[in-house]
Amino acid sequence: MTQSPLYRERAVKTYDHGNTQSASVPVVLEIPITVYVNDTELATLICSPGGHKELAVGFLLSEGLLQDLTDIKDITFNEQDGLLWVETTEPVPQMENFLRRQIASCCGKGRAALYYINDARKLKPVQSSCVFAAGHLLRLIGLLEEGSATFRKTGGVHSAALGDSQGMLVMHEDIGRHNAVDKVMGHAFLNRLNPADKCLLLSGRISSEILIKAAHNGIPVVVSRSAPTFLAVELADEFNITLVGFARGERLTVYSHTERVSM
Amino acid sequence: MTQSPLYRERAVKTYDHGNTQSASVPVVLEIPITVYVNDTELATLICSPGGHKELAVGFLLSEGLLQDLTDIKDITFNEQDGLLWVETTEPVPQMENFLRRQIASCCGKGRAALYYINDARKLKPVQSSCVFAAGHLLRLIGLLEEGSATFRKTGGVHSAALGDSQGMLVMHEDIGRHNAVDKVMGHAFLNRLNPADKCLLLSGRISSEILIKAAHNGIPVVVSRSAPTFLAVELADEFNITLVGFARGERLTVYSHTERVSM
Repeated sequence: MTQSPLYRERAVKTYDHGNTQSASVPVVLEIPITVYVNDTELATLICSPGGHKELAVGFLLSEGLLQDLTDIKDITFNEQDGLLWVETTEPVPQMENFLRRQIASCCGKGRAALYYINDARKLKPVQSSCVFAAGHLLRLIGLLEEGSATFRKTGGVHSAALGDSQGMLVMHEDIGRHNAVDKVMGHAFLNRLNPADKCLLLSGRISSEILIKAAHNGIPVVVSRSAPTFLAVELADEFNITLVGFARGERLTVYSHTERVSM
Repeated sequence: MTQSPLYRERAVKTYDHGNTQSASVPVVLEIPITVYVNDTELATLICSPGGHKELAVGFLLSEGLLQDLTDIKDITFNEQDGLLWVETTEPVPQMENFLRRQIASCCGKGRAALYYINDARKLKPVQSSCVFAAGHLLRLIGLLEEGSATFRKTGGVHSAALGDSQGMLVMHEDIGRHNAVDKVMGHAFLNRLNPADKCLLLSGRISSEILIKAAHNGIPVVVSRSAPTFLAVELADEFNITLVGFARGERLTVYSHTERVSM
Protein backbone atom coordinates (compact mmCIF):
# COMPACT_ATOMS: atom_id res chain seq x y z
CA MET A 1 0.00 0.00 0.00
CA THR A 2 1.36 3.42 -0.90
CA GLN A 3 2.52 5.69 1.91
CA SER A 4 3.27 9.30 0.89
CA PRO A 5 0.45 11.24 -0.82
CA LEU A 6 0.39 10.86 -4.59
CA TYR A 7 -1.02 14.37 -5.14
CA ARG A 8 -0.45 18.05 -4.34
CA GLU A 9 -2.85 20.99 -4.03
CA ARG A 10 -3.12 23.47 -6.90
CA ALA A 11 -4.89 26.83 -7.13
CA VAL A 12 -7.44 26.75 -9.98
CA LYS A 13 -10.47 28.58 -11.33
CA THR A 14 -13.68 26.59 -11.59
CA TYR A 15 -16.74 27.17 -13.77
CA ASP A 16 -20.01 25.54 -12.72
CA HIS A 17 -23.33 26.33 -14.42
CA GLY A 18 -22.19 29.87 -15.19
CA ASN A 19 -20.63 30.52 -11.76
CA THR A 20 -16.89 31.20 -11.54
CA GLN A 21 -14.81 30.57 -8.43
CA SER A 22 -11.19 30.39 -7.24
CA ALA A 23 -10.43 27.10 -5.52
CA SER A 24 -7.68 24.69 -4.52
CA VAL A 25 -7.86 21.12 -5.81
CA PRO A 26 -5.65 18.00 -5.41
CA VAL A 27 -3.69 17.08 -8.57
CA VAL A 28 -1.77 13.79 -8.98
CA LEU A 29 2.00 13.94 -9.02
CA GLU A 30 3.93 12.56 -12.02
CA ILE A 31 7.67 11.85 -11.87
CA PRO A 32 10.25 10.27 -14.19
CA ILE A 33 12.43 7.46 -12.77
CA THR A 34 15.37 6.05 -14.70
CA VAL A 35 16.17 2.41 -13.97
CA TYR A 36 19.75 1.10 -14.18
CA VAL A 37 20.80 -2.54 -13.95
CA ASN A 38 24.45 -2.96 -12.93
CA ASP A 39 25.17 0.61 -14.13
CA THR A 40 23.58 0.10 -17.55
CA GLU A 41 20.71 2.51 -18.19
CA LEU A 42 17.60 0.49 -19.01
CA ALA A 43 14.47 2.64 -19.17
CA THR A 44 12.78 5.76 -17.86
CA LEU A 45 9.37 5.20 -16.34
CA ILE A 46 6.93 8.12 -15.96
CA CYS A 47 5.06 7.23 -12.78
CA SER A 48 3.55 8.13 -9.44
CA PRO A 49 5.86 8.44 -6.42
CA GLY A 50 6.08 5.48 -4.03
CA GLY A 51 6.73 1.77 -4.51
CA HIS A 52 9.94 2.52 -6.43
CA LYS A 53 11.62 -0.76 -5.54
CA GLU A 54 8.50 -2.73 -6.51
CA LEU A 55 8.20 -0.76 -9.75
CA ALA A 56 11.77 -1.48 -10.80
CA VAL A 57 11.52 -5.19 -9.93
CA GLY A 58 8.12 -5.50 -11.61
CA PHE A 59 9.45 -3.82 -14.76
CA LEU A 60 12.46 -6.17 -14.88
CA LEU A 61 10.16 -9.19 -14.40
CA SER A 62 7.87 -8.02 -17.21
CA GLU A 63 10.87 -7.75 -19.48
CA GLY A 64 12.14 -11.21 -18.52
CA LEU A 65 15.29 -9.84 -16.87
CA LEU A 66 14.78 -11.40 -13.43
CA GLN A 67 14.12 -15.06 -12.62
CA ASP A 68 14.67 -15.53 -8.90
CA LEU A 69 14.71 -13.34 -5.79
CA THR A 70 18.32 -14.36 -5.17
CA ASP A 71 19.25 -12.64 -8.49
CA ILE A 72 18.91 -9.28 -6.69
CA LYS A 73 21.93 -8.14 -4.69
CA ASP A 74 20.85 -4.57 -3.90
CA ILE A 75 18.41 -1.85 -4.92
CA THR A 76 19.18 1.82 -4.25
CA PHE A 77 17.09 4.88 -5.09
CA ASN A 78 18.17 8.52 -5.47
CA GLU A 79 14.85 10.30 -5.02
CA GLN A 80 16.29 13.76 -5.76
CA ASP A 81 17.35 12.86 -9.31
CA GLY A 82 14.86 10.05 -9.94
CA LEU A 83 17.58 7.42 -10.43
CA LEU A 84 17.18 3.80 -9.38
CA TRP A 85 19.95 1.18 -9.47
CA VAL A 86 19.39 -2.57 -9.36
CA GLU A 87 22.51 -4.63 -8.69
CA THR A 88 22.33 -8.33 -9.48
CA THR A 89 24.40 -11.16 -8.04
CA GLU A 90 25.37 -12.40 -11.53
CA PRO A 91 25.47 -10.58 -14.90
CA VAL A 92 22.05 -10.72 -16.59
CA PRO A 93 22.50 -12.58 -19.91
CA GLN A 94 19.05 -11.45 -21.18
CA MET A 95 20.12 -7.78 -20.84
CA GLU A 96 22.07 -7.95 -24.07
CA ASN A 97 19.02 -9.15 -25.94
CA PHE A 98 16.81 -6.51 -24.28
CA LEU A 99 19.23 -3.72 -25.20
CA ARG A 100 19.73 -4.99 -28.74
CA ARG A 101 15.98 -5.23 -29.27
CA GLN A 102 15.44 -1.75 -27.86
CA ILE A 103 18.24 -0.24 -29.90
CA ALA A 104 17.18 -2.08 -33.03
CA SER A 105 13.68 -0.72 -32.80
CA CYS A 106 14.75 2.60 -31.32
CA CYS A 107 11.79 2.02 -29.14
CA GLY A 108 10.16 5.07 -27.75
CA LYS A 109 6.99 3.11 -27.45
CA GLY A 110 7.61 -0.59 -27.82
CA ARG A 111 9.23 -2.87 -30.29
CA ALA A 112 9.31 -3.53 -33.99
CA ALA A 113 5.86 -4.65 -35.04
CA LEU A 114 7.18 -7.92 -36.40
CA TYR A 115 8.89 -8.81 -33.11
CA TYR A 116 6.29 -7.47 -30.72
CA ILE A 117 3.81 -10.31 -31.01
CA ASN A 118 6.31 -13.04 -31.91
CA ASP A 119 8.40 -12.22 -28.85
CA ALA A 120 5.32 -12.47 -26.67
CA ARG A 121 4.33 -15.79 -28.21
CA LYS A 122 7.54 -17.38 -26.92
CA LEU A 123 6.16 -17.18 -23.37
CA LYS A 124 4.96 -20.41 -21.76
CA PRO A 125 1.21 -20.85 -21.18
CA VAL A 126 0.22 -20.36 -17.54
CA GLN A 127 -0.34 -23.63 -15.64
CA SER A 128 -3.05 -23.31 -13.01
CA SER A 129 -6.25 -25.13 -12.16
CA CYS A 130 -7.54 -22.44 -9.79
CA VAL A 131 -11.20 -21.45 -10.00
CA PHE A 132 -12.78 -18.22 -8.73
CA ALA A 133 -16.49 -17.67 -8.15
CA ALA A 134 -17.84 -14.76 -10.23
CA GLY A 135 -19.27 -13.21 -7.06
CA HIS A 136 -15.86 -13.37 -5.36
CA LEU A 137 -14.15 -11.61 -8.29
CA LEU A 138 -16.81 -8.87 -8.11
CA ARG A 139 -16.19 -8.48 -4.36
CA LEU A 140 -12.44 -8.14 -5.04
CA ILE A 141 -13.08 -5.49 -7.71
CA GLY A 142 -15.29 -3.73 -5.15
CA LEU A 143 -12.38 -3.73 -2.68
CA LEU A 144 -10.10 -2.32 -5.40
CA GLU A 145 -12.53 0.57 -5.89
CA GLU A 146 -12.87 1.18 -2.16
CA GLY A 147 -9.10 1.24 -1.81
CA SER A 148 -8.57 3.75 -4.61
CA ALA A 149 -8.27 6.79 -2.34
CA THR A 150 -6.08 8.81 -4.72
CA PHE A 151 -8.43 8.18 -7.62
CA ARG A 152 -11.39 9.44 -5.60
CA LYS A 153 -9.41 12.57 -4.66
CA THR A 154 -7.85 13.31 -8.06
CA GLY A 155 -9.39 11.14 -10.81
CA GLY A 156 -5.85 10.87 -12.12
CA VAL A 157 -4.60 7.36 -11.34
CA HIS A 158 -5.17 3.73 -12.20
CA SER A 159 -5.11 0.97 -9.62
CA ALA A 160 -3.94 -2.65 -9.67
CA ALA A 161 -4.05 -5.36 -7.03
CA LEU A 162 -3.43 -9.04 -6.49
CA GLY A 163 -6.15 -11.20 -4.93
CA ASP A 164 -6.69 -14.83 -4.01
CA SER A 165 -9.56 -16.97 -2.72
CA GLN A 166 -9.34 -15.19 0.66
CA GLY A 167 -9.20 -11.53 -0.38
CA MET A 168 -6.87 -8.76 -1.56
CA LEU A 169 -3.13 -9.12 -0.92
CA VAL A 170 -1.50 -5.95 -2.26
CA MET A 171 -2.66 -2.85 -4.13
CA HIS A 172 -0.99 0.09 -5.85
CA GLU A 173 -2.25 3.26 -7.51
CA ASP A 174 -0.19 4.90 -10.27
CA ILE A 175 -0.70 7.43 -13.08
CA GLY A 176 0.36 4.63 -15.47
CA ARG A 177 -1.64 1.43 -15.94
CA HIS A 178 1.58 -0.46 -16.64
CA ASN A 179 3.33 0.93 -13.57
CA ALA A 180 0.47 -0.04 -11.24
CA VAL A 181 0.75 -3.63 -12.51
CA ASP A 182 4.56 -3.62 -12.28
CA LYS A 183 4.41 -2.39 -8.66
CA VAL A 184 2.00 -5.15 -7.69
CA MET A 185 4.05 -7.81 -9.50
CA GLY A 186 7.26 -6.46 -7.97
CA HIS A 187 5.70 -6.79 -4.52
CA ALA A 188 4.59 -10.38 -5.19
CA PHE A 189 8.09 -11.35 -6.36
CA LEU A 190 9.89 -9.65 -3.46
CA ASN A 191 7.55 -11.46 -1.05
CA ARG A 192 7.76 -14.82 -2.85
CA LEU A 193 4.00 -15.04 -3.41
CA ASN A 194 2.94 -18.01 -5.53
CA PRO A 195 1.22 -16.60 -8.65
CA ALA A 196 -0.66 -19.80 -9.59
CA ASP A 197 -3.69 -19.19 -7.34
CA LYS A 198 -3.84 -15.40 -7.72
CA CYS A 199 -5.85 -13.01 -9.83
CA LEU A 200 -4.68 -9.63 -11.07
CA LEU A 201 -7.29 -6.89 -10.50
CA LEU A 202 -7.24 -3.70 -12.57
CA SER A 203 -9.18 -0.46 -12.86
CA GLY A 204 -7.85 0.25 -16.37
CA ARG A 205 -8.10 -1.40 -19.75
CA ILE A 206 -6.40 -4.71 -20.55
CA SER A 207 -4.12 -4.07 -23.52
CA SER A 208 -1.69 -6.64 -24.94
CA GLU A 209 1.13 -5.20 -22.83
CA ILE A 210 -0.80 -5.80 -19.59
CA LEU A 211 -1.65 -9.34 -20.67
CA ILE A 212 2.01 -10.02 -21.48
CA LYS A 213 2.96 -8.83 -17.97
CA ALA A 214 0.49 -11.31 -16.47
CA ALA A 215 1.91 -14.12 -18.63
CA HIS A 216 5.49 -13.24 -17.65
CA ASN A 217 4.48 -13.48 -14.01
CA GLY A 218 2.42 -16.67 -14.31
CA ILE A 219 -0.91 -15.09 -13.24
CA PRO A 220 -3.84 -17.27 -14.44
CA VAL A 221 -6.73 -14.77 -14.05
CA VAL A 222 -6.84 -11.08 -15.07
CA VAL A 223 -9.91 -9.03 -14.08
CA SER A 224 -10.66 -5.42 -15.01
CA ARG A 225 -13.46 -2.92 -14.46
CA SER A 226 -12.74 -1.77 -18.04
CA ALA A 227 -12.48 -3.17 -21.57
CA PRO A 228 -9.87 -5.53 -23.03
CA THR A 229 -8.42 -5.18 -26.54
CA PHE A 230 -8.80 -7.90 -29.17
CA LEU A 231 -5.05 -8.61 -29.18
CA ALA A 232 -5.11 -9.04 -25.39
CA VAL A 233 -7.97 -11.54 -25.74
CA GLU A 234 -6.10 -13.48 -28.45
CA LEU A 235 -2.95 -13.61 -26.30
CA ALA A 236 -5.04 -14.73 -23.30
CA ASP A 237 -6.34 -17.62 -25.46
CA GLU A 238 -2.76 -18.67 -26.21
CA PHE A 239 -1.26 -18.13 -22.74
CA ASN A 240 -4.05 -20.06 -21.01
CA ILE A 241 -5.09 -16.92 -19.09
CA THR A 242 -8.68 -16.21 -18.04
CA LEU A 243 -9.51 -12.64 -19.07
CA VAL A 244 -12.45 -10.94 -17.37
CA GLY A 245 -13.60 -7.45 -18.37
CA PHE A 246 -16.28 -4.95 -17.34
CA ALA A 247 -16.39 -6.39 -13.82
CA ARG A 248 -18.56 -3.89 -11.96
CA GLY A 249 -21.43 -4.12 -9.52
CA GLU A 250 -23.08 -7.49 -10.20
CA ARG A 251 -21.82 -7.99 -13.75
CA LEU A 252 -18.75 -9.24 -15.56
CA THR A 253 -17.76 -10.60 -18.98
CA VAL A 254 -15.39 -13.57 -19.42
CA TYR A 255 -13.46 -13.37 -22.71
CA SER A 256 -11.20 -16.43 -22.52
CA HIS A 257 -10.71 -19.71 -20.59
CA THR A 258 -14.08 -19.44 -18.92
CA GLU A 259 -13.45 -22.66 -16.97
CA ARG A 260 -11.67 -20.70 -14.20
CA VAL A 261 -14.78 -18.63 -13.38
CA SER A 262 -17.56 -20.52 -11.64
CA MET A 263 -20.96 -18.91 -12.05
CA MET B 1 -12.65 10.80 -39.06
CA THR B 2 -11.89 7.09 -38.95
CA GLN B 3 -13.32 4.83 -41.65
CA SER B 4 -12.93 1.09 -41.02
CA PRO B 5 -14.36 -0.30 -37.77
CA LEU B 6 -11.96 -0.22 -34.85
CA TYR B 7 -13.43 -3.36 -33.26
CA ARG B 8 -14.31 -6.99 -33.94
CA GLU B 9 -16.95 -9.30 -32.43
CA ARG B 10 -15.91 -11.88 -29.86
CA ALA B 11 -17.82 -14.77 -28.29
CA VAL B 12 -17.91 -14.35 -24.51
CA LYS B 13 -19.70 -15.56 -21.40
CA THR B 14 -21.48 -12.93 -19.32
CA TYR B 15 -22.53 -13.00 -15.67
CA ASP B 16 -25.25 -10.61 -14.55
CA HIS B 17 -26.85 -10.77 -11.09
CA GLY B 18 -26.27 -14.51 -10.96
CA ASN B 19 -27.44 -15.24 -14.52
CA THR B 20 -24.96 -16.70 -17.00
CA GLN B 21 -25.23 -16.30 -20.75
CA SER B 22 -23.24 -16.83 -23.96
CA ALA B 23 -23.02 -13.67 -26.03
CA SER B 24 -21.06 -11.85 -28.73
CA VAL B 25 -19.58 -8.44 -27.88
CA PRO B 26 -17.51 -5.89 -29.84
CA VAL B 27 -13.86 -5.67 -28.70
CA VAL B 28 -11.44 -2.94 -29.85
CA LEU B 29 -8.64 -3.94 -32.19
CA GLU B 30 -5.02 -3.26 -31.18
CA ILE B 31 -2.18 -3.41 -33.72
CA PRO B 32 1.55 -2.63 -33.66
CA ILE B 33 2.89 -0.28 -36.36
CA THR B 34 6.62 0.29 -36.82
CA VAL B 35 7.57 3.72 -38.20
CA TYR B 36 10.64 4.15 -40.40
CA VAL B 37 12.09 7.49 -41.53
CA ASN B 38 14.27 7.17 -44.65
CA ASP B 39 14.75 3.45 -43.89
CA THR B 40 15.83 4.01 -40.28
CA GLU B 41 13.58 2.26 -37.77
CA LEU B 42 12.24 4.84 -35.36
CA ALA B 43 9.52 3.45 -33.09
CA THR B 44 6.75 0.89 -32.77
CA LEU B 45 3.36 2.33 -31.87
CA ILE B 46 0.68 0.07 -30.38
CA CYS B 47 -2.52 1.61 -31.73
CA SER B 48 -5.96 1.32 -33.30
CA PRO B 49 -6.20 0.75 -37.07
CA GLY B 50 -6.88 3.78 -39.28
CA GLY B 51 -5.28 7.22 -39.64
CA HIS B 52 -1.85 5.60 -40.08
CA LYS B 53 -0.42 8.49 -42.07
CA GLU B 54 -1.69 11.02 -39.54
CA LEU B 55 -0.32 8.90 -36.69
CA ALA B 56 3.17 8.72 -38.18
CA VAL B 57 3.26 12.44 -39.00
CA GLY B 58 1.85 13.39 -35.59
CA PHE B 59 4.44 11.20 -33.86
CA LEU B 60 7.29 12.79 -35.84
CA LEU B 61 5.94 16.27 -35.02
CA SER B 62 5.74 15.44 -31.30
CA GLU B 63 9.36 14.32 -31.42
CA GLY B 64 10.47 17.48 -33.23
CA LEU B 65 11.46 15.55 -36.38
CA LEU B 66 9.26 17.46 -38.84
CA GLN B 67 9.06 21.22 -39.35
CA ASP B 68 7.25 21.87 -42.61
CA LEU B 69 4.84 20.00 -44.86
CA THR B 70 7.36 20.22 -47.72
CA ASP B 71 9.75 18.10 -45.60
CA ILE B 72 7.61 15.05 -46.48
CA LYS B 73 8.34 13.42 -49.83
CA ASP B 74 6.26 10.27 -49.48
CA ILE B 75 4.47 8.09 -46.93
CA THR B 76 3.81 4.40 -47.65
CA PHE B 77 2.11 1.82 -45.44
CA ASN B 78 2.33 -1.97 -45.51
CA GLU B 79 -0.81 -2.93 -43.65
CA GLN B 80 -0.04 -6.66 -43.71
CA ASP B 81 3.19 -6.32 -41.70
CA GLY B 82 2.36 -3.08 -39.87
CA LEU B 83 5.28 -1.18 -41.43
CA LEU B 84 5.10 2.51 -42.28
CA TRP B 85 7.81 4.42 -44.16
CA VAL B 86 8.15 8.20 -44.18
CA GLU B 87 10.50 9.56 -46.84
CA THR B 88 11.70 13.13 -46.39
CA THR B 89 12.99 15.55 -49.05
CA GLU B 90 16.18 16.23 -47.06
CA PRO B 91 17.96 14.17 -44.38
CA VAL B 92 16.50 14.95 -40.93
CA PRO B 93 19.35 16.35 -38.79
CA GLN B 94 17.35 15.94 -35.54
CA MET B 95 17.09 12.17 -36.18
CA GLU B 96 20.62 11.60 -34.95
CA ASN B 97 19.80 13.32 -31.66
CA PHE B 98 16.53 11.38 -31.35
CA LEU B 99 18.27 8.06 -31.94
CA ARG B 100 21.18 8.90 -29.62
CA ARG B 101 18.73 9.92 -26.89
CA GLN B 102 16.69 6.76 -27.35
CA ILE B 103 19.73 4.51 -27.39
CA ALA B 104 21.33 6.30 -24.45
CA SER B 105 18.27 5.76 -22.33
CA CYS B 106 17.43 2.39 -23.88
CA CYS B 107 14.00 3.79 -23.79
CA GLY B 108 11.21 1.30 -23.55
CA LYS B 109 9.11 3.93 -21.93
CA GLY B 110 10.63 7.37 -22.31
CA ARG B 111 13.92 9.09 -21.66
CA ALA B 112 16.44 9.41 -18.88
CA ALA B 113 14.73 11.20 -15.99
CA LEU B 114 17.31 13.98 -16.03
CA TYR B 115 16.70 14.70 -19.72
CA TYR B 116 12.96 14.17 -19.86
CA ILE B 117 11.92 17.46 -18.28
CA ASN B 118 14.96 19.48 -19.38
CA ASP B 119 14.41 18.48 -22.99
CA ALA B 120 10.79 19.58 -22.77
CA ARG B 121 11.77 22.91 -21.22
CA LYS B 122 13.70 23.83 -24.37
CA LEU B 123 10.39 24.23 -26.22
CA LYS B 124 9.21 27.76 -26.98
CA PRO B 125 6.14 29.06 -25.08
CA VAL B 126 3.01 29.09 -27.25
CA GLN B 127 2.12 32.54 -28.64
CA SER B 128 -1.63 33.05 -28.94
CA SER B 129 -4.12 35.62 -27.72
CA CYS B 130 -7.18 33.47 -28.51
CA VAL B 131 -10.00 33.31 -25.98
CA PHE B 132 -12.70 30.61 -25.69
CA ALA B 133 -15.94 30.96 -23.77
CA ALA B 134 -16.27 28.28 -21.07
CA GLY B 135 -19.68 27.34 -22.50
CA HIS B 136 -18.18 26.85 -25.97
CA LEU B 137 -15.47 24.53 -24.63
CA LEU B 138 -18.17 22.47 -22.89
CA ARG B 139 -20.15 22.26 -26.14
CA LEU B 140 -17.01 21.04 -27.94
CA ILE B 141 -16.39 18.39 -25.25
CA GLY B 142 -20.04 17.39 -25.71
CA LEU B 143 -19.42 16.94 -29.45
CA LEU B 144 -16.33 14.83 -28.67
CA GLU B 145 -18.47 12.55 -26.52
CA GLU B 146 -21.21 12.33 -29.15
CA GLY B 147 -18.62 11.46 -31.80
CA SER B 148 -17.02 8.68 -29.76
CA ALA B 149 -18.90 5.84 -31.44
CA THR B 150 -16.23 3.20 -30.83
CA PHE B 151 -16.01 4.11 -27.15
CA ARG B 152 -19.76 3.69 -26.76
CA LYS B 153 -19.58 0.29 -28.47
CA THR B 154 -16.46 -1.04 -26.75
CA GLY B 155 -15.38 1.19 -23.83
CA GLY B 156 -11.85 0.55 -25.08
CA VAL B 157 -10.62 3.75 -26.76
CA HIS B 158 -9.71 7.34 -26.02
CA SER B 159 -10.70 10.20 -28.27
CA ALA B 160 -8.99 13.46 -29.26
CA ALA B 161 -10.13 16.32 -31.46
CA LEU B 162 -9.19 19.81 -32.57
CA GLY B 163 -11.71 22.64 -32.24
CA ASP B 164 -11.88 26.35 -32.91
CA SER B 165 -14.36 29.17 -32.27
CA GLN B 166 -16.72 27.65 -34.86
CA GLY B 167 -16.77 24.00 -33.86
CA MET B 168 -14.92 20.70 -34.19
CA LEU B 169 -12.45 20.24 -37.07
CA VAL B 170 -11.11 16.71 -36.79
CA MET B 171 -11.48 13.82 -34.38
CA HIS B 172 -9.80 10.42 -33.86
CA GLU B 173 -10.39 7.50 -31.54
CA ASP B 174 -7.50 5.23 -30.55
CA ILE B 175 -6.69 2.67 -27.86
CA GLY B 176 -3.76 4.97 -26.89
CA ARG B 177 -4.24 8.50 -25.52
CA HIS B 178 -0.98 9.53 -27.18
CA ASN B 179 -1.92 8.05 -30.53
CA ALA B 180 -5.29 9.81 -30.61
CA VAL B 181 -3.49 13.14 -30.11
CA ASP B 182 -0.81 12.29 -32.68
CA LYS B 183 -3.46 11.42 -35.28
CA VAL B 184 -5.26 14.72 -34.74
CA MET B 185 -2.00 16.69 -34.85
CA GLY B 186 -0.88 14.81 -37.94
CA HIS B 187 -4.14 15.73 -39.66
CA ALA B 188 -3.73 19.42 -38.72
CA PHE B 189 -0.18 19.47 -40.09
CA LEU B 190 -1.04 17.64 -43.32
CA ASN B 191 -3.88 20.12 -43.88
CA ARG B 192 -1.86 23.20 -42.89
CA LEU B 193 -4.26 24.20 -40.10
CA ASN B 194 -3.04 27.17 -38.05
CA PRO B 195 -2.68 25.93 -34.44
CA ALA B 196 -2.77 29.39 -32.77
CA ASP B 197 -6.58 29.63 -32.57
CA LYS B 198 -7.28 25.96 -31.88
CA CYS B 199 -8.01 23.93 -28.78
CA LEU B 200 -7.10 20.28 -28.28
CA LEU B 201 -10.00 18.25 -26.87
CA LEU B 202 -9.40 14.96 -25.03
CA SER B 203 -11.37 12.23 -23.32
CA GLY B 204 -8.33 10.98 -21.39
CA ARG B 205 -6.01 12.34 -18.75
CA ILE B 206 -3.50 15.12 -19.47
CA SER B 207 -0.07 13.77 -18.56
CA SER B 208 3.19 15.60 -19.20
CA GLU B 209 3.62 13.76 -22.50
CA ILE B 210 0.28 15.02 -23.82
CA LEU B 211 1.13 18.56 -22.74
CA ILE B 212 4.52 18.34 -24.48
CA LYS B 213 2.75 17.26 -27.70
CA ALA B 214 0.52 20.35 -27.50
CA ALA B 215 3.57 22.57 -26.95
CA HIS B 216 5.41 21.00 -29.89
CA ASN B 217 2.42 21.75 -32.09
CA GLY B 218 1.78 25.29 -30.83
CA ILE B 219 -1.71 24.57 -29.42
CA PRO B 220 -2.67 27.25 -26.82
CA VAL B 221 -5.61 25.50 -25.11
CA VAL B 222 -5.88 21.84 -23.96
CA VAL B 223 -9.23 20.62 -22.62
CA SER B 224 -10.02 17.21 -21.13
CA ARG B 225 -12.99 15.45 -19.58
CA SER B 226 -10.46 13.89 -17.18
CA ALA B 227 -7.73 14.91 -14.74
CA PRO B 228 -4.34 16.49 -15.44
CA THR B 229 -1.12 15.55 -13.62
CA PHE B 230 0.85 18.07 -11.55
CA LEU B 231 3.81 17.93 -13.96
CA ALA B 232 1.47 18.66 -16.90
CA VAL B 233 0.11 21.70 -15.04
CA GLU B 234 3.64 22.96 -14.29
CA LEU B 235 4.67 22.54 -17.94
CA ALA B 236 1.46 24.34 -19.02
CA ASP B 237 2.50 27.26 -16.77
CA GLU B 238 5.86 27.42 -18.54
CA PHE B 239 4.67 26.84 -22.11
CA ASN B 240 1.93 29.46 -21.84
CA ILE B 241 -0.73 26.82 -22.41
CA THR B 242 -4.22 26.99 -20.91
CA LEU B 243 -4.98 23.65 -19.30
CA VAL B 244 -8.64 22.78 -18.64
CA GLY B 245 -9.62 19.56 -16.85
CA PHE B 246 -12.83 17.80 -15.75
CA ALA B 247 -14.80 19.52 -18.53
CA ARG B 248 -18.17 17.72 -18.39
CA GLY B 249 -21.78 18.78 -18.49
CA GLU B 250 -21.83 22.38 -17.22
CA ARG B 251 -18.55 22.29 -15.30
CA LEU B 252 -14.84 22.70 -15.93
CA THR B 253 -11.65 23.51 -14.01
CA VAL B 254 -8.94 25.83 -15.40
CA TYR B 255 -5.49 24.95 -14.05
CA SER B 256 -3.24 27.43 -15.89
CA HIS B 257 -3.35 30.65 -17.94
CA THR B 258 -6.98 31.27 -17.09
CA GLU B 259 -7.02 34.41 -19.28
CA ARG B 260 -7.88 32.33 -22.36
CA VAL B 261 -11.16 31.08 -20.89
CA SER B 262 -13.92 33.68 -20.63
CA MET B 263 -16.55 32.85 -18.02
